[in-house]
Amino acid sequence: MLTAAIALAAFLAQEVDPDVAGQTPGEVVAAAPAEAWRAIAPDHLLLVTLADDSEVAIELNSTFAPVHVANIQAMARAGYWTGGGASVYRVQDNYVVQWGHRDDQPELPAGVEETPPAEYVRSIEGLAVNGFGMRDSYAAAVGFSDGWPVALYSDGTASLTHCYGAVGVGRNMSPDTGTGEELYAVIGHAPRHLDRNIAIVGRVVDGMAHYTSLTRGTEVLGMYPEGEVAAPIKSVILADMLAPEDRPNYEVLRSDSEAFARYVAVRANRDDAFYDVPAGGVDVCNVQVPVRAAE
Amino acid sequence: MLTAAIALAAFLAQEVDPDVAGQTPGEVVAAAPAEAWRAIAPDHLLLVTLADDSEVAIELNSTFAPVHVANIQAMARAGYWTGGGASVYRVQDNYVVQWGHRDDQPELPAGVEETPPAEYVRSIEGLAVNGFGMRDSYAAAVGFSDGWPVALYSDGTASLTHCYGAVGVGRNMSPDTGTGEELYAVIGHAPRHLDRNIAIVGRVVDGMAHYTSLTRGTEVLGMYPEGEVAAPIKSVILADMLAPEDRPNYEVLRSDSEAFARYVAVRANRDDAFYDVPAGGVDVCNVQVPVRAAE
Repeated sequence: MLTAAIALAAFLAQEVDPDVAGQTPGEVVAAAPAEAWRAIAPDHLLLVTLADDSEVAIELNSTFAPVHVANIQAMARAGYWTGGGASVYRVQDNYVVQWGHRDDQPELPAGVEETPPAEYVRSIEGLAVNGFGMRDSYAAAVGFSDGWPVALYSDGTASLTHCYGAVGVGRNMSPDTGTGEELYAVIGHAPRHLDRNIAIVGRVVDGMAHYTSLTRGTEVLGMYPEGEVAAPIKSVILADMLAPEDRPNYEVLRSDSEAFARYVAVRANRDDAFYDVPAGGVDVCNVQVPVRAAE
Repeated sequence: MLTAAIALAAFLAQEVDPDVAGQTPGEVVAAAPAEAWRAIAPDHLLLVTLADDSEVAIELNSTFAPVHVANIQAMARAGYWTGGGASVYRVQDNYVVQWGHRDDQPELPAGVEETPPAEYVRSIEGLAVNGFGMRDSYAAAVGFSDGWPVALYSDGTASLTHCYGAVGVGRNMSPDTGTGEELYAVIGHAPRHLDRNIAIVGRVVDGMAHYTSLTRGTEVLGMYPEGEVAAPIKSVILADMLAPEDRPNYEVLRSDSEAFARYVAVRANRDDAFYDVPAGGVDVCNVQVPVRAAE
């Protein structure tokens, strides 16, 4: 269902919702009831451990790029990136970090589709989207679906968006679509021009600073010189490969919850004590979807 | 003059300008003629040198916050942040780095205004703005003025925008406006909700990665624990305090040049070999204004 709010694409009013007046986004999130949160499924939680044991947690999304995500799951289960050889080898300021096997890529494990379709968009049909009247520079409308920022286009397609922390599949020139063996995460202002041109498979939900604080690469596109890496990768696994008691657990604020609507309203109209003038609007990538560690 | 293009606020057409078809932003910038560039004045080029001798160069802008900028110039000339005691002490992921004297702030040098006005907006009058029909979530219109991204509001005011690299003045709660002794730079997705709420005084034009790759602070708001710093500051000077032959020189692509218009067009409609679908639009903070080292 495409909500009326999104169809209107109205500019958010500059009046502050009395329900949230004076509250910070953090206060609104802290007040969200238990039922406003959804758990991240352990087979969709990718855990990247760097050589220094720092960990980056990524939620995978099978709704937009199911073949690419299945590939990534198969590679993680086969230990494709575990035990040496994989690294973060590209760190381009205000753009992306990229990891995988830069050279000497091992043979792909069984079950990996070597030429996935171009899963850059999907049909709007069947997608439940909550819109909040946000303006957008790149799409006919934007909103949130199941806790993910999405863009909707006039041709009836939808895509995930390249917001901060978005994880996509590195590829060569079309018709190559990438297998998922090389992934990147956005570490700067949203490069939304990549939307519809590359498969987005997930987003970083924890440990982002382990990527963003890496020393930038000195070669073109932020690549490290041959033979050097930003960070060796120790392992990449899915959370369900760990015993239940050893798994990290995360929850995402449901974007169809009342709490999320309040959160968007305060993001768009900051009027807590620090602010003189509420913005009266917010862009989709400045509404960071709340994620928390669960018990 | 407010251009007709901005008044229209039309969505950028999804047709690629035949003049730039197939070109990358870098190619358009490389082809810009000498007269499309303006030099950064050495009295408006602030050079922050960290303890490891890495240097961050910041262009100051006196058009929006003249009292705050004059304060910063006076503090730099007096060596306020030079010779120990100043540091980068806050690094908040996807938000800002902040520097200055966290505690034990020395007495302000002569000539520094201790309570500057709230220079968060100025009148549109007298401001030459080139607009390119960009949509915006925060303002009635956006464009570029003298190489700076600006936002225009329906009440006749204008502000600089909190794009990646923007430098603003840390402050306490209103009516405090900050003196300029504590500054921050944006290191994540543009926090445009800060526009009109804080004085923007410039932007990082070189060395941004020295800030963005700093280890994130572990305390609330990305603060470092008491007694710890992300990076000690060795000196902060204006370029004109150096002998002419020792000064770094930078040039900014003039936003009223034909080359800049072409640059915006290719940022909005990437159709070089990597892209399948030109976006047909771009947001103001995804048009990074080109800056180059000059001879």
